[in-house]
Amino acid sequence: MAKDKLIGVDLGGTTIKFAILTAEGEIQQKWSVQTNILQDGSHIVPDIIDSINHHLNLYQLDKDRIIGIGMGTPGTVDRENGTVEGAFNLNWDADHKQNVKADIEAGTGLTLSIDNDANVAGLGEQWRGAGNNADDVAFITLGTGVGGGLIANGKLIHGVAGAGGEVGHICVEPGGYLCTCGNRGCLEQYTSATGVVHLAHDFAEEYAGDSKLKSLVDNGEEVTSKIVFDLAASGDFLANEVVNKVAYYLGFASANLSAILNPSAVVIGGGVSAAGEFLRSRVEQSFENFAFPTVRTSTKIKLAELGNDAGVVGAASLARG
Amino acid sequence: MAKDKLIGVDLGGTTIKFAILTAEGEIQQKWSVQTNILQDGSHIVPDIIDSINHHLNLYQLDKDRIIGIGMGTPGTVDRENGTVEGAFNLNWDADHKQNVKADIEAGTGLTLSIDNDANVAGLGEQWRGAGNNADDVAFITLGTGVGGGLIANGKLIHGVAGAGGEVGHICVEPGGYLCTCGNRGCLEQYTSATGVVHLAHDFAEEYAGDSKLKSLVDNGEEVTSKIVFDLAASGDFLANEVVNKVAYYLGFASANLSAILNPSAVVIGGGVSAAGEFLRSRVEQSFENFAFPTVRTSTKIKLAELGNDAGVVGAASLARG
Repeated sequence: MAKDKLIGVDLGGTTIKFAILTAEGEIQQKWSVQTNILQDGSHIVPDIIDSINHHLNLYQLDKDRIIGIGMGTPGTVDRENGTVEGAFNLNWDADHKQNVKADIEAGTGLTLSIDNDANVAGLGEQWRGAGNNADDVAFITLGTGVGGGLIANGKLIHGVAGAGGEVGHICVEPGGYLCTCGNRGCLEQYTSATGVVHLAHDFAEEYAGDSKLKSLVDNGEEVTSKIVFDLAASGDFLANEVVNKVAYYLGFASANLSAILNPSAVVIGGGVSAAGEFLRSRVEQSFENFAFPTVRTSTKIKLAELGNDAGVVGAASLARG
Repeated sequence: MAKDKLIGVDLGGTTIKFAILTAEGEIQQKWSVQTNILQDGSHIVPDIIDSINHHLNLYQLDKDRIIGIGMGTPGTVDRENGTVEGAFNLNWDADHKQNVKADIEAGTGLTLSIDNDANVAGLGEQWRGAGNNADDVAFITLGTGVGGGLIANGKLIHGVAGAGGEVGHICVEPGGYLCTCGNRGCLEQYTSATGVVHLAHDFAEEYAGDSKLKSLVDNGEEVTSKIVFDLAASGDFLANEVVNKVAYYLGFASANLSAILNPSAVVIGGGVSAAGEFLRSRVEQSFENFAFPTVRTSTKIKLAELGNDAGVVGAASLARG
């Protein structure tokens, strides 16, 4: 029987997303289950196995037609051995390797390829999203943290210890905000959801003019990155200053990233990128200010296109081998 | 007859270096000729052809044994079509493509692969030099300008328009020194031979203490990057401040480059790197200050090992296909 289908699995702390795709990356079926992180996350792998077996049965899809399963996961991934550790939102701790590949392969009879979630989302956007299947694409995801998935010559960059693509830890402000990694001034501290809020608080403190954002901060009300972007869009001066600073750092990091990779696109995704064109156009402005001329004309700043599907699509791409 | 030899050609503005190597990259013969840039550099390609044919004959090496010729060149390279333009130190201007590949292939009967000189030197250091043939290696060359040759997953990074690896144009100082590229604060403006001298002049102007470097500058004597490093090594305070600043920027750029590529080594070569361990150790210090923890422990800052041979060795590597 000809192998013509891929399975993509996007393992997250809240849900596990699944999809069955054609070899060309067209999603044919998708479903999801809640992530059960109880008992040290010991239900997760069995749940994945059961869900795949159940759905292949449900769709009467013969396993002989499956090219393979690809999966994106949080935590530290050993791609060769197919193990994962230190995925704290799954309750998988750092000194207890989960034999994800061996277990899923044994439980499904299918081969599994695995990589970290930001890499996999990057691969999804490169293959079927804003990257247009180009050989060189950089993906930056702005969420709780800032991650990256970088593709050069058609392949994900992992580097010698898997820290390739740690875009969130590009230093954009020497001596700046302290980062969870121990350094100061990392991109993540300025452009993640919490980074935006951090900037908003600092800017509010130094601003004396009239601003809704300032009153929210001064009154101790909850400020989220979405609120900052919404206020900026509605014309709040201070909120606009914050957004400009976020865009400044993203443009600076994108330009330096692009002096190294000269990708056809820097694709911006993740929750913070929901601000859309409002954010993208400003990032582009900063990027153009810092980018080497050849890069400025050949590397485009784009918004991610696949949304929540990037994970399953990129995971499926992994399984193409 | 078994193909077992490579030819590497390193085309420069002063000399053209040649080598015959084993398939494993061992240099067996090397020679060089002066670069004749007269008549719009029209003698260069014929000279290369003659020199190769002559030496193969001289060494009684059958052309059937040659796997191919690889060549590094200044200017803008179209790798696919094998053309070069805008190599100003060869008198090859920007709107007149040189059909380097077609001509050399016709003239020698051998296949030619071509890439730019910094990429090729990077490939040499990766294959047979400080890179230890690892899959992920970054090479930074500090000369008149600052160039890079970046290897990820065992392949050179070119990007969509060939501007991948433009390490000299990573912005390290927003709003800083004006660069020839039109931007401000590019690495090249601080760490090339002229960049070091620029820093020396600026530091001398602001320094009131006792310093040999300051007297040289104040007296209008010639200051070179070598003089700055020599004075620093002999304990001159101001010269040490300059070297520290050069190392600061190189460490900053190396750390950010490594957050992206996580290479096993950042290899520093080119004329300015003749300062050796004196420079390397300071770059490492700055690098460690900015690098993401996983990168700090897995990416090493190294000095180039092949010297002038990097070009021919890397060029030969290109010919391996």
